[in-house]
Amino acid sequence: MKELKLALLGFGVAGKAFSQILLDRHDAIWEDKGLDVKVTAITTGRSGCLVDPEGIDLARALELMEARGSFQPGDPGYRETDSLTVVREGDYDALIEMTPTNIKNGQPAIDYLTWALERDKHVITANKGPVAFAYGRLKKLAREKGRCFFYETSVMVGTPLFNMAETCLPYCKVKGVRGLLNASCNYFLEELGRGRSFDHIMEEARRAGFLEADPSQDLDGWDAAVKLTALMNVFMNAEMDPARVERTGIRGVTADQAREALARGKKIRLLCQGHMDCEGRPVAVVRPEEIPFDDPLAASDLVACLRLDTDLMGPISIGHHKMEPGQTGYGLFSDLVRLVRHVAETL
Amino acid sequence: MKELKLALLGFGVAGKAFSQILLDRHDAIWEDKGLDVKVTAITTGRSGCLVDPEGIDLARALELMEARGSFQPGDPGYRETDSLTVVREGDYDALIEMTPTNIKNGQPAIDYLTWALERDKHVITANKGPVAFAYGRLKKLAREKGRCFFYETSVMVGTPLFNMAETCLPYCKVKGVRGLLNASCNYFLEELGRGRSFDHIMEEARRAGFLEADPSQDLDGWDAAVKLTALMNVFMNAEMDPARVERTGIRGVTADQAREALARGKKIRLLCQGHMDCEGRPVAVVRPEEIPFDDPLAASDLVACLRLDTDLMGPISIGHHKMEPGQTGYGLFSDLVRLVRHVAETL
Repeated sequence: MKELKLALLGFGVAGKAFSQILLDRHDAIWEDKGLDVKVTAITTGRSGCLVDPEGIDLARALELMEARGSFQPGDPGYRETDSLTVVREGDYDALIEMTPTNIKNGQPAIDYLTWALERDKHVITANKGPVAFAYGRLKKLAREKGRCFFYETSVMVGTPLFNMAETCLPYCKVKGVRGLLNASCNYFLEELGRGRSFDHIMEEARRAGFLEADPSQDLDGWDAAVKLTALMNVFMNAEMDPARVERTGIRGVTADQAREALARGKKIRLLCQGHMDCEGRPVAVVRPEEIPFDDPLAASDLVACLRLDTDLMGPISIGHHKMEPGQTGYGLFSDLVRLVRHVAETL
Repeated sequence: MKELKLALLGFGVAGKAFSQILLDRHDAIWEDKGLDVKVTAITTGRSGCLVDPEGIDLARALELMEARGSFQPGDPGYRETDSLTVVREGDYDALIEMTPTNIKNGQPAIDYLTWALERDKHVITANKGPVAFAYGRLKKLAREKGRCFFYETSVMVGTPLFNMAETCLPYCKVKGVRGLLNASCNYFLEELGRGRSFDHIMEEARRAGFLEADPSQDLDGWDAAVKLTALMNVFMNAEMDPARVERTGIRGVTADQAREALARGKKIRLLCQGHMDCEGRPVAVVRPEEIPFDDPLAASDLVACLRLDTDLMGPISIGHHKMEPGQTGYGLFSDLVRLVRHVAETL
């Protein structure tokens, strides 16, 4: 029986959701493709690591993490190690990289992926950092090594985007992108339109736990800029980095402005737009814009939405309606299935 | 050098657009996959047929059809034959079926596809009829024969839908669909909202040439019902046919109703909804409904839009913005590339 060994970097929301889906569908993959997918390492930043070349008991690992929030000495497979050591020395075929995004330079995730590819491993990342800061380099390395490099989850949490364009829009060029990529900004702007003040919304969002301790990644447009850069690197070979995005956040938007826009039949949204100019230079802008009601981007129902302007199929929009923890896990899982199909074909 | 021979049934808007893209990208396919894709037959209902087992000169065929609207005796490859004869006796590896949809029973397209599959040929159809009336049967036959059966263009003109769900949402179940599937109805309802009468809009649409001589397929909801059935057959194995759709067209909608809805912040649209009930029976409804402005389905900018409600990824929406002739051609071409990838792998 053929095996595919996975090393999981990170075991937070994404890692747990991914592991749960893997448990639930393990038998289906095995029946379809004859591949026994097993997890041989799980690393976390501060919550301990498990390593077992014979395969970690995932159900047990999930239970332990649920119950205590960490892996501890005495747990089956517990090991004093760290992500970099596992990446460089561990026994695995594919790396599933789910560490937090560093929006300054994409590290250390870029190093993890580079090391893994150098060792002829496949890599899947949920992290927009490497795609925004090192896409061209990583893609080239993956091609040279004949290994997969997938990143569906890095933008719009697993909604088919990168895999969709690559597998379902063959020979079709994406000429531009336009969309809303940050759900927190959508929420803020929608609430401002209801007449509530910025500080009030911020306080409530913090209390509800869906705003980061440092909300500047969202509110100043950094998160959106990093995602826009990732899209442009993948779709247009832009080879740019987030610092080149013309970026304005939403802190300057007032409740009055939001309500005045509504009165004119428009909604203020943090719009992300990118294309290549006629000399092949990337033009990328993130800033609050008024969107008319009858543009799909104004739909309250969508937490994120992207329009791809293509040469052969015209514009296509893809929208994501609800943010649920399982989706990140599923996005990673869909990349894994793509990898499994590839591996099964090349066995 | 390996060849893939295509027989084209139909050489109207779709057939010409498909042929043009095939001409433009032929070399790319050859370089990527080492397959020489050639067209060995083109049949039309009343405009003549071309047959050449060595490969028809597509550029020339396009010129002839552009210039005269038909193939005629003396044209290179001209042959007195018909679609059924070519399907049953012709020399081809894959059938590209682009005949007009028969919304009563899907014939004769179902027979064409069946004959081709029985002869161990791959089949691609742009025709929603076979998918609505005989999906289960054709799929089973294709599986038994180990041949491809693709139909991306049959709903939403090539916007990635069927191929997207199958390749990018693995092990993910579609539990329901909700969307707008008929662009003419959108147009009518939008114009009614501007206060224009039904008859006036009809007259104008006829003059502009984008309404069929018999508009009942669109206005009575038949086209939408056939598409909804196709979606439910593919996504939910519904094994239903269009007669089981609870169907109300838009002829009863008045300009006053459309304007009153607008005043309440809503738009009337011909909404298509389908799911399986708790006993596994398909429930499918096509009828005019009021859609709130902040639902993406109310966007004027979209000619069609579909929400897939999935178990693992939640709801995902896909929108199609502009109707252009090239898109049908591209949808067929994207199916062809999927086929080429499959054939290249199994060589």
